[in-house]
Formats: sequence, C-alpha cells, structure tokens
Amino acid sequence: MSVTAPKGFRAAATAAGIKDEGLDLALLVADWGCSAAAVFTTNRAQAAPVIVSREHLAAGQARAVVVNAGCANAGTGEQGLRDARETAALVAREIGCRPGEVVVASTGVIGVCLPMEKVRSGIAHVVPSLSRDGGAVAARAILTTDTRPKEAVVEFPLDGHRATLGAMAKGSGMIAPNMATLLAFFTTDAALDPRLLHRALREAVGVSLNRITVDGDTSTNDIAVVLASGAVPVKAIMEEGRDYDAFRSALTQVARKIAGMIVRDGEGATRVAEVRVEGARVESEADRIARTVAESPLVKTALNGGDPNWGRVLAAVGRAGVDLDMGQVDLFLGDVWVAEGGRARDYDEARARQALAEDPIRIRVRLKEGRASGWMWTCDLSHGYVDINAHYRS
Amino acid sequence: MSVTAPKGFRAAATAAGIKDEGLDLALLVADWGCSAAAVFTTNRAQAAPVIVSREHLAAGQARAVVVNAGCANAGTGEQGLRDARETAALVAREIGCRPGEVVVASTGVIGVCLPMEKVRSGIAHVVPSLSRDGGAVAARAILTTDTRPKEAVVEFPLDGHRATLGAMAKGSGMIAPNMATLLAFFTTDAALDPRLLHRALREAVGVSLNRITVDGDTSTNDIAVVLASGAVPVKAIMEEGRDYDAFRSALTQVARKIAGMIVRDGEGATRVAEVRVEGARVESEADRIARTVAESPLVKTALNGGDPNWGRVLAAVGRAGVDLDMGQVDLFLGDVWVAEGGRARDYDEARARQALAEDPIRIRVRLKEGRASGWMWTCDLSHGYVDINAHYRS
Repeated sequence: MSVTAPKGFRAAATAAGIKDEGLDLALLVADWGCSAAAVFTTNRAQAAPVIVSREHLAAGQARAVVVNAGCANAGTGEQGLRDARETAALVAREIGCRPGEVVVASTGVIGVCLPMEKVRSGIAHVVPSLSRDGGAVAARAILTTDTRPKEAVVEFPLDGHRATLGAMAKGSGMIAPNMATLLAFFTTDAALDPRLLHRALREAVGVSLNRITVDGDTSTNDIAVVLASGAVPVKAIMEEGRDYDAFRSALTQVARKIAGMIVRDGEGATRVAEVRVEGARVESEADRIARTVAESPLVKTALNGGDPNWGRVLAAVGRAGVDLDMGQVDLFLGDVWVAEGGRARDYDEARARQALAEDPIRIRVRLKEGRASGWMWTCDLSHGYVDINAHYRS
Repeated sequence: MSVTAPKGFRAAATAAGIKDEGLDLALLVADWGCSAAAVFTTNRAQAAPVIVSREHLAAGQARAVVVNAGCANAGTGEQGLRDARETAALVAREIGCRPGEVVVASTGVIGVCLPMEKVRSGIAHVVPSLSRDGGAVAARAILTTDTRPKEAVVEFPLDGHRATLGAMAKGSGMIAPNMATLLAFFTTDAALDPRLLHRALREAVGVSLNRITVDGDTSTNDIAVVLASGAVPVKAIMEEGRDYDAFRSALTQVARKIAGMIVRDGEGATRVAEVRVEGARVESEADRIARTVAESPLVKTALNGGDPNWGRVLAAVGRAGVDLDMGQVDLFLGDVWVAEGGRARDYDEARARQALAEDPIRIRVRLKEGRASGWMWTCDLSHGYVDINAHYRS
C-alpha cells in the first residue's frame, strides 16, 4: 500500500517507454490540496526537477507528485527546466490543479533530456488508472538499479483517532549523506502546518536518510517530500506538543525503515554495517569519523570479504580530519574488543570473524575526547557494485 | 639499478619470513653519512616506524634505510615503538653507525607486531650481501600487493659533472593525496644542505606522489625519504640557484615517474586517468574538485567500463564542497567537448567512447571562476580491487 495507505491519496504507474522496459512513470495524487514539505540534494549540480519542485513547494502546498525513472533530467540546462515545468503542467491539467501544486522528481541517467513525447502520452495514460490501491505499483515504477521496491507504513494515535503514515522510496547507488540519489515520498492523513511538517521532515531525515552511504557519491536529483492530506477528522497540528511528537515519531520510524531498506539494497550489497562513534567532542566530529569509516573502500571491501581487518577502521579514523588522540581509540567489532588505546588487544580472531557474519555488522569506535556520538549505516563494496556501475548507460 | 644508481650507495634484500613467501626485507646503506629529508603520512594514526623515523631524521642526517613488507607495525603501541627502535639499532650495529642514522619503514597488515626473531635474523643475513647492484632486488622486497617494482633513474648536470638520482617505491592500494600507503626512497650523489633537500622533496612530492589516488584511503605508514651522498666531486648545494634548480627538477622528474608507475599499478587498475580542473578561483579549490572527481566510485567504475558517463563527473564537481556556478561548467573527455555550461552538448558519442580508450584517459573540467588550475591522476575501480582487498589478511 505504502503511499496510498493514508486516507486521501491515489496512485498509479505506467510503462511510458523512458526506460527500455518496465514501469517508469509514477503519479501520486491527493484528493485535495495538502500541506507539503521537502528536503533536496546538497549537490551544487541540481537537476531541473529539483529546481522546479523547490519553487513549487515554496508555499508549503502540493496536490500531486509525478516521478519518472530512466532519465534524471540533470545537466540539461534551460531545456530541462522547460521539460520539468511542462511535466508539472500536464499533470495539473489532467487532475485539475495549479502547476505549482505538482512536485516533479526524476532519476536515471544524467545529461540526457526527457523524451517529452513519451512523458506526455505516459501522463495521459496513467491518470485514468489512479486508484487507492496504486501505492505498490507506483513504488515499483520509481526504481532504477534497485532490486526491490521500498515501502513502509505505520499507524499512530492522533487525538483519539488512528492516523497513518506511508512511504515509498528508491535509492541504491550514488547514496551518501545529505540526500544522495534518493527519492523518498511520504504521505499522511494527519494535517499539519507546513512549517511544522518541514521541521519534522528535516529531523526525521537527519537520523535516517542522511545516515546511509553506499558510495559517497551525492546525486543531483535527491528529494524527500511529505504530503499531509488531513483526511483524518481531527484538527490540524499547528504547534509543537503531544500530537506533533506523535507525528514526528511516526515519520522518523518510517524514514528509518526506508533508510534501512535502501542501504540493504545498495548496489551490489551483500552485507550491511552500522558504524557507531562514541566519546567525541561534538556530534559533528563523531558523524565525520563515522562517515569516513563507512565510506572507506578498504573498510567496505573488508566487509565484503568478512575480514575483521580493524586496522583499516583505525586508519580511516586517523584520516577523518578530526583532531583526536589516536592513543585513546578503542575499537569493537560486534561484541569483540579488538583494539585498545590505538593498538591490538589479545582478542579471539575466530570471534572477530564471527562478528563480521552478523547482520548488521556492528563497528564501534570509542574515543576519549568527550561525550558526543554519531553513527552511519553502510554496505560492503562488491563485484556487484562494479558490474552495475561500469556499464550503467550501456 | 634504482637507488644504487647514484654513487655511494649499496643495497640488498632477503626473504626474512615476515611475509608467507618472497623477499620482504630490504636494506639501503650509504658509504658514509648523508644529508637526508623526508615527508610522512598526514594520517593521525601513525605507524611506529613513522614516529621513529621522524625522530631520527630531525637532524637531517641518515646513513641507512631498512624496510620490511608484510607487517605495517601500526596499531602496535609501545611494543611497536620498541620494535622499530630495535630494528634501527640492529642495522646500526651491523653497519657501524648511530641508531639515529637509520630510517625505518614498514608496510603490510595493521595491528600486528613485527616478528622480531625474523627481523633480527633477516638483518644479520642481509648485511653481508649489500652490493652496488642491490637496487633491483631491494625494489622487489618492499612490495605488497604491487604487481611490479617501481624504479626510476635520471642523470642531471651539476657544476660540470653528471650527478644521478635514483628511486624505488611501493604503493598500490590505500593511495590517496598526502602520502597514502606509499613508501618512496630517493638517492642522489649530489650533496645538499638538509633544509634545501627537504624543500626540494616537499615540492617534488606536491606535484607527483600527492597527486595520485587509488581509493582515497590514506595510510598510517607513508614515508618518502631522500638521501644525498655527495659522492660526486662538486661542492654541496647550500643555497637556491642553478644547481638547486637542476636537482629539484631531477627529483620532480623521478617522483612523477614513480607516481605514474604507482597509479598504473593501482590495485586492480586496468585504466589510468588524468583529471584536470581549470578556471578555479584558487589552486586549493581546483585540487579539491579534481580529487573529488578522481576518487568518485561512480566515475571510477565508469572508467572501468569505458563508459563516457560525464554526468557522474558533473555530479562529483557539484558535491566537491566548492562554491561555484554550475551553469558555467564545461566538461571534456579527451578532445571531445561533452558538456557546456553544465549541460550536454551535441557531441559524437562514438568519439566520446573512443576518448575512454585513450591512455591515459583525460578528463578536463573547465570553470569560469578564476585562473587557478589543479590535477590528479587516478585509476579505475574494478573487480580486481575488490578481489585484492576483500581477503587481504587471509
């Protein structure tokens, strides 16, 4: 069900021919105007749909989201902007809203213009099939190198009623902190002030989608959007408090589920690891160290081989650009304390190897600099990653 | 010949049993005390031999260099320092110099102590075989995952004589700017003031060994050392001028040869690329963009597949953390101008694909921010890299 689980949303998808085969155009439509919020890629190279959707969402309102896979509409200049705007206008005309209420998202190859003839006929084709059961098919249509759809739903109590939060996402490669190639769409039948909705989204993404890395490459096209239909018959959440906390908690829960699915489906991923850093001076330094370990090709290939090569973790900690006393660094693989004060302990190699067979693998870095901590999720670097990316365009 | 090409040096190597098989202990000895200089890893996790060699080279003098492969003696705490000091003392006793005149270098697995019994017998064994022809065997003994030795020699005119500069190096993975797992040893029969020698080394490394990246992982063990025997019968270079320029030019030339050999022998490398960035505001920003492109796993897998996927280059430029106008970015693959002002040009795809078959592949990023430029050498990311690193310790 995913994005159509909450009341007030319909979805559909079609094979518009933008990809060589399969579903590639998804449409999500609310029954009426929703409050809406989004966060976007931090890459300075921003795809046309990112630029257009940012404009459209400035007022905190949206009615529909149209997503295509197979073409990122990035590196396409003015033509790309015209195409993204036309896509929004086509959807608006079909469903009866302003173009500015349509969010546009694209994923796929960079540097190629959208095949607008196919987009036009795809939109004409997809609108009549919008349905309250369309969430699953929409979740399939937004995928690229993903091997499976990512969907999640939670219910949460809201002022004596049950509200629902649903999500679909794509993301497999070009995944790095700060919204790498990742499209995530959240819907809820709660109602919220758009500014509160934005705050909740930023906080939820900060502890979920911004904590995963596959290859450290940040995309040009990332967007995470939330639409709140307000179909549940309770009053809108207009300030912080118990209801806001319930919503934010549900959004965080769903976003973390989605993040876990993405890293587990990372391109070529065969293992997943959580890197935790404790005892840092400030959170940003803990995060920086966790990210450096999580993105290290040598750590990631060791994960692939199931090799408890903690020396590579130590080396990554040392090059993270954080001022720290390496003579006070402890390392743990799972429950095995492998290094103390920056040097090897007399640990059981078989147990350390066993820790690399856990799911997720747990890498813990303990510093003695302060009390701040941070974490990242990552996956291994495998033959599969190379296969997928060496010939992606071909 | 490499490090024994200049007059005044002997070398030898032996299979001490530190690695499972093959040569793993190299010794380079000057006929008398040399002026010496070195640069070291910037990783905060510094191996014991790095710490000890830094102490020993503080006075700008050295007589010998002892190198082992198979064990990095990193993450080994106080025991590691004792072992590195004992190694230097053993060499000093055998050849008759102060322990402080012996440079120690190690490469291999992190977190394991040196097998000192093997080191002791290895040193006793290697000293009697020191010879003026020992450069080649020494260059083989310092390798780990390298597939071939790296040696270079140049001659240069010095005050009416011919002076010689030789080098040997190892480095294949954990190669990143600022001296990743890389050991480089330079010898010359010129004589220089140690401070000038250090300056020349820093400048040469800055445009050679610091410009290559294999995986962005900076090692704990890097060292580049130069020893100047002064065996050529001319007066020592004590100040900048024509002789210093001749020396620095020769050192830069050899260091660039060595750097090229290392990136070409990068773990699993099948292709080599040069990333040039022009039109940046300042050199550091040009370098940062070049490095981000050169280290991008998505760019490196595209190189592996021979895929002219310039969108990934554009995306890497955009996430480099440099403030720039992406609407003013031009991209070239070889001689093919593929993107202008941040968007696709109408280029010939077959010619772009051909540019990916060149050696080296040339990736050029042209900005309109200023007049500074920078560059990096990199290699592709292949199955071979994963194979080598997934089970390195096993």
